[in-house]
Amino acid sequence: MKKIKMGMIGGGIGAFIGDAHRRASRICNDFELVCGVFDSDYDKNREFAKKEGISDKRCYESVDALIRGELSLSPDQRMEAVSIVTPNALHFPFAKNLLSNGFHVVCEKPMTMTVTEAEDLERTVAEKKLTFALTHTYTGYPMVRQMRELISGGVLGTIQRIDAQYYQGWINSIIHGTDSRITGVWRLDPKHAGVSSCMGDIGVHAFNLIEYTTGLQIKEVLSDLNSVTDDVALDLDGTVLVRFNNKLKGVIRASQVCGGEENNLTIAVYGSKASFKWSQEDPNFLYLLSDSEPTRIYKPAHGYNEPLAESSHTMPSGHPEGIYEALANIYKGAAKSIRGEKFDSAEFPTVHDGVRGMKFIHAVVESNKKGNTWIKV
Amino acid sequence: MKKIKMGMIGGGIGAFIGDAHRRASRICNDFELVCGVFDSDYDKNREFAKKEGISDKRCYESVDALIRGELSLSPDQRMEAVSIVTPNALHFPFAKNLLSNGFHVVCEKPMTMTVTEAEDLERTVAEKKLTFALTHTYTGYPMVRQMRELISGGVLGTIQRIDAQYYQGWINSIIHGTDSRITGVWRLDPKHAGVSSCMGDIGVHAFNLIEYTTGLQIKEVLSDLNSVTDDVALDLDGTVLVRFNNKLKGVIRASQVCGGEENNLTIAVYGSKASFKWSQEDPNFLYLLSDSEPTRIYKPAHGYNEPLAESSHTMPSGHPEGIYEALANIYKGAAKSIRGEKFDSAEFPTVHDGVRGMKFIHAVVESNKKGNTWIKV
Amino acid sequence: MKKIKMGMIGGGIGAFIGDAHRRASRICNDFELVCGVFDSDYDKNREFAKKEGISDKRCYESVDALIRGELSLSPDQRMEAVSIVTPNALHFPFAKNLLSNGFHVVCEKPMTMTVTEAEDLERTVAEKKLTFALTHTYTGYPMVRQMRELISGGVLGTIQRIDAQYYQGWINSIIHGTDSRITGVWRLDPKHAGVSSCMGDIGVHAFNLIEYTTGLQIKEVLSDLNSVTDDVALDLDGTVLVRFNNKLKGVIRASQVCGGEENNLTIAVYGSKASFKWSQEDPNFLYLLSDSEPTRIYKPAHGYNEPLAESSHTMPSGHPEGIYEALANIYKGAAKSIRGEKFDSAEFPTVHDGVRGMKFIHAVVESNKKGNTWIKV
Amino acid sequence: MKKIKMGMIGGGIGAFIGDAHRRASRICNDFELVCGVFDSDYDKNREFAKKEGISDKRCYESVDALIRGELSLSPDQRMEAVSIVTPNALHFPFAKNLLSNGFHVVCEKPMTMTVTEAEDLERTVAEKKLTFALTHTYTGYPMVRQMRELISGGVLGTIQRIDAQYYQGWINSIIHGTDSRITGVWRLDPKHAGVSSCMGDIGVHAFNLIEYTTGLQIKEVLSDLNSVTDDVALDLDGTVLVRFNNKLKGVIRASQVCGGEENNLTIAVYGSKASFKWSQEDPNFLYLLSDSEPTRIYKPAHGYNEPLAESSHTMPSGHPEGIYEALANIYKGAAKSIRGEKFDSAEFPTVHDGVRGMKFIHAVVESNKKGNTWIKV
Repeated sequence: MKKIKMGMIGGGIGAFIGDAHRRASRICNDFELVCGVFDSDYDKNREFAKKEGISDKRCYESVDALIRGELSLSPDQRMEAVSIVTPNALHFPFAKNLLSNGFHVVCEKPMTMTVTEAEDLERTVAEKKLTFALTHTYTGYPMVRQMRELISGGVLGTIQRIDAQYYQGWINSIIHGTDSRITGVWRLDPKHAGVSSCMGDIGVHAFNLIEYTTGLQIKEVLSDLNSVTDDVALDLDGTVLVRFNNKLKGVIRASQVCGGEENNLTIAVYGSKASFKWSQEDPNFLYLLSDSEPTRIYKPAHGYNEPLAESSHTMPSGHPEGIYEALANIYKGAAKSIRGEKFDSAEFPTVHDGVRGMKFIHAVVESNKKGNTWIKV
Repeated sequence: MKKIKMGMIGGGIGAFIGDAHRRASRICNDFELVCGVFDSDYDKNREFAKKEGISDKRCYESVDALIRGELSLSPDQRMEAVSIVTPNALHFPFAKNLLSNGFHVVCEKPMTMTVTEAEDLERTVAEKKLTFALTHTYTGYPMVRQMRELISGGVLGTIQRIDAQYYQGWINSIIHGTDSRITGVWRLDPKHAGVSSCMGDIGVHAFNLIEYTTGLQIKEVLSDLNSVTDDVALDLDGTVLVRFNNKLKGVIRASQVCGGEENNLTIAVYGSKASFKWSQEDPNFLYLLSDSEPTRIYKPAHGYNEPLAESSHTMPSGHPEGIYEALANIYKGAAKSIRGEKFDSAEFPTVHDGVRGMKFIHAVVESNKKGNTWIKV
Repeated sequence: MKKIKMGMIGGGIGAFIGDAHRRASRICNDFELVCGVFDSDYDKNREFAKKEGISDKRCYESVDALIRGELSLSPDQRMEAVSIVTPNALHFPFAKNLLSNGFHVVCEKPMTMTVTEAEDLERTVAEKKLTFALTHTYTGYPMVRQMRELISGGVLGTIQRIDAQYYQGWINSIIHGTDSRITGVWRLDPKHAGVSSCMGDIGVHAFNLIEYTTGLQIKEVLSDLNSVTDDVALDLDGTVLVRFNNKLKGVIRASQVCGGEENNLTIAVYGSKASFKWSQEDPNFLYLLSDSEPTRIYKPAHGYNEPLAESSHTMPSGHPEGIYEALANIYKGAAKSIRGEKFDSAEFPTVHDGVRGMKFIHAVVESNKKGNTWIKV
Repeated sequence: MKKIKMGMIGGGIGAFIGDAHRRASRICNDFELVCGVFDSDYDKNREFAKKEGISDKRCYESVDALIRGELSLSPDQRMEAVSIVTPNALHFPFAKNLLSNGFHVVCEKPMTMTVTEAEDLERTVAEKKLTFALTHTYTGYPMVRQMRELISGGVLGTIQRIDAQYYQGWINSIIHGTDSRITGVWRLDPKHAGVSSCMGDIGVHAFNLIEYTTGLQIKEVLSDLNSVTDDVALDLDGTVLVRFNNKLKGVIRASQVCGGEENNLTIAVYGSKASFKWSQEDPNFLYLLSDSEPTRIYKPAHGYNEPLAESSHTMPSGHPEGIYEALANIYKGAAKSIRGEKFDSAEFPTVHDGVRGMKFIHAVVESNKKGNTWIKV
């Protein structure tokens, strides 16, 4: 099958997330990287392009140049989609520009800096009828998809409590200066990161995972955030009380200063009949708990799984796939959409998920500023 | 060594917690059950006493009769300590009466119905110079004690976040009527249980575990509670934001409607240098996480443990001890105190822990009532 | 209920296994320790008796003195059962003597030094119609009993492979001299331990666990043992190929030099329809694996368990019981037998299990001596 | 960097292992699939080539045609390496032919059908000075490499016991006919699979993992194999006693009829000072056990890891990579060798590992045939 020609913005030398997107796109085998603006430093940009086997001609100095250059190519050569893996502040202007010029977009989260920008993007996508995929990577895991399908099928009964956690510890090495391999400091700078560090970077993943797996919407939040040290302007840690309706409440906990935690995203959804628990660091184990039956462990590559889960895993059971394969599943979904094939709406997060995420981040920050009061999402 | 003569109030036929106290007292081997008021129904009371090998004469109709009867015996025959394992509302009057008459008390939590009662008891204990042990059983686990000792020794650096959870699901079977073996319904009745079900019964354990292991005090709480169903007056579920000081915040999560959760009490204490995680359902594994070194798993019965932890485990390593042995450790500590032997203050929770617990429960309930505002503990 | 009067042989100061038996007997609450020969050193014997609250008069100098002394007491005072917790070589003479004089016996494993002794004991028990309980403690765990009941009910289909492991590392500290807290060295001395260290002490537990849970008999063994160091005469490590019938084979692996392993006894029974896995260090989790359904985790204190398992656990679910409670379940079974109550044959191991165990140990040692050939059990 | 042009033999529609090789080669990004013989059925062959975007011209009817066709191309277009993912019997003739014609080879295991063939291939590789990579995929996991490096550095002291297991259950669905999605039946046919099913397919992985991680060589084996059902000619299950030297023994256990086991490869290496345990289904956790210190859990992407391990993981810690990434690491190592770059001999298994593996498989089968006697490897 012909591969979709893809450009990339950001993700040059040393940027792990750009590498992740490229690997994922190669794993799913639906995309071919043909051009990009990989670094704002042009020399590094070209050095990287060379390493990737991208011709100088298609290694552009700017996004504007990229758009101009690609539009000047014949349609069968021209890039069709662009992957945006820059710091947060650049997502909106680049995405907007690309969509306006007719290119599909795959974009890192958080989608934008503000809710206004997010809604602007939502309108643009609707107008242009293009594919916009937001890489909430964790929704690409087979067992997350299995959870979604079984919840939607009613396995849990009435949901009674939801608890999601996203704990990391890597910011410790920055604020306590204990690791010389420091990267990602831009996340602490409001100019590049936006109104939030912890909630914007990882809390929003927990939020998205809740809405993705349960199909429910969080209506209100009350947050208590913590910058931990006076040197930092943004939140590095926080807890968010969440409400779905009168009888359903929950909590989102996120932190970047939980020393020793690596990438500990977990979700627990408790229902009147049964409950699910899943943890990102053991992504191939999904636990179904019940008061009346033994706990069940679902794993990928079994006939008992729902089609959406089964089609998201390629190896036989017991051969662990990981986060690259999860991201590849998102890319696979986006590819189907770009190609006009039939796809399930659960196969990739869209601009609407991005709008929800921005509303969440801003409501959380506002709640904290206003003295921990309830704010509508 | 001569055993301490012990009476018991409550804990008759079918009461698992009374049985637990008796087993624990036999495991530590410092107590001998000699008398009691095991049931408010006198026939059942006598039936139980007979089964236990307690003479009719020392199976009393009421606490007043117990006190009178025992005081009439010669000091070498008379009970010295009493274990109170009744529903919550009776803890205070019985404890107060017993202390006033010179008996040591071992009491289930929550200690009283109100803060006023708790402080009254605190004064009584101080006046009478008697031993009062509150059975926050989980502080009896060797690895909880190991955590306390290592935190106190500075292993974690500055604590940056604390997260404790106590999730159970058994109330589901009551509110959804799915289990015919229903017991413990008195916990849903304010007359017997007090102002709270979930926070009073289990949230307070999480609270106590935090203060026990870290030596810190929670200053303020903001809670969001949930009774889940209109048929229930008390909280069955809730989240409590907690603050220790300006830069240290945390969360306590507790629920009795997390279907399939059994007795899932966990604590995570995150510090600038390292972090601890412990879970009650795997009590013999204590995890020390760090950003710069492999995670360590501490287990009981090793030379590397602190004396308080080592003396709280009797079997060689790999021979799992459980919750009865944890409770026996509390009884062992109380026995040392009663006998006037030297003991570490960490060996059993006292009336002061009970006062703290009552303040916590009431602050949590007040915060929820006042629309989720901060309340001092 | 009246307690069974119990004597004890061995198990004085510093002997953990004697302490374990006393705790277990107190937990189940059916026994009362009234006399004993706790140490071959009479001063230590008396010191220990005093500490336990045993009167000097009933602290005897020898087993002969114990028997004489107790027989001279009136039947309502006299001991009825005796717990033997001495080094292996003494099990047989003491047990034989006690049984011959009309006393029930609870005995540590391995039951005897030789198969001849074992069969002698078997005849004596049959003749005297007394209770003889062999403390294969691990058969007292609720989830081991659940496994037995479900296998017997056919859950696994035809059994296709059996794999049991018992790995410890504590002998390392003896042979490499790295721990000053050395105990148990008698296990390396053939005079006290018999023909085997590793297989006699722990391999036999794995053997027993297989026969207990599956109801099958091992017909033949082929072993390869290892004394690891020239300083040691007995096996410290070994693997045993086992055969049940033409199409069912398995393996028993045991070692005392697996550094860092604590008491890692595991069993896996694989059937045509499903399989079970259980591990002693997490005794309250039983895994049922299947090719066509999610893995199930059985835990104690649930309505879905078989009666034998349910009656072997007293706390509500999620309150972990441990090895003392497992041993207490064996004592509970023995008590029922001694009292003439109805009991399930799975409630405690008997002299027949002891004979099987001795046959296993001797066949394993013989196979190794004869150059790793098949020997009938 | 210019990609290595790769051909593939086998691995067409429905063949998961071919897909795995292609994904792995794309993940490491050093190879480009340009031609192949994907299926012995030419129509399916072309259908698959089309799907992969391979031109008809380079989709060949036979290996001979492939070699002829590619040799006729100019060197800058011609394939440089070939990935062989056919059933076992075809590995040798194809590999021999390709090497003889100057092509590098990546080959699935077991390498050949006989030891003679294996040694022939070894000579050919030596003569031709080409790269031959055998895909013992599990040696590509970062934590397996970490184990190797730390063992080689002496962390374990003297090794005292080695225990490796490879349990699967998928053959159950064939022999009991319970799954309609049956593939891989050729593994039960000696003509295609060779002298062994279980040991040849998976036992040899356990063997290789032992020699890879410890640097030791197994000298002798004694096996007991089981075909489980009369309908099957080859072993589906077995245990292999292994000896390294006089004082170091171990065991390899492998089975394809352990129902419910997915791909449960584990290794435990026990030393005088410490021990390692690793399990393929949780590949990112490596356990270091010791008698005197808390167990340590090593994970990828940490400064404490050895360079070989660190360079085998690309994501930040806590972002789980899986088996595709492990295989990509093998491909990465082969690419370095093909390009003449510097590489560590631990970066990919070679023809020598293949010879060792064939010797192991044949010794195991011979031992079983000769009545379970010791056979030199």
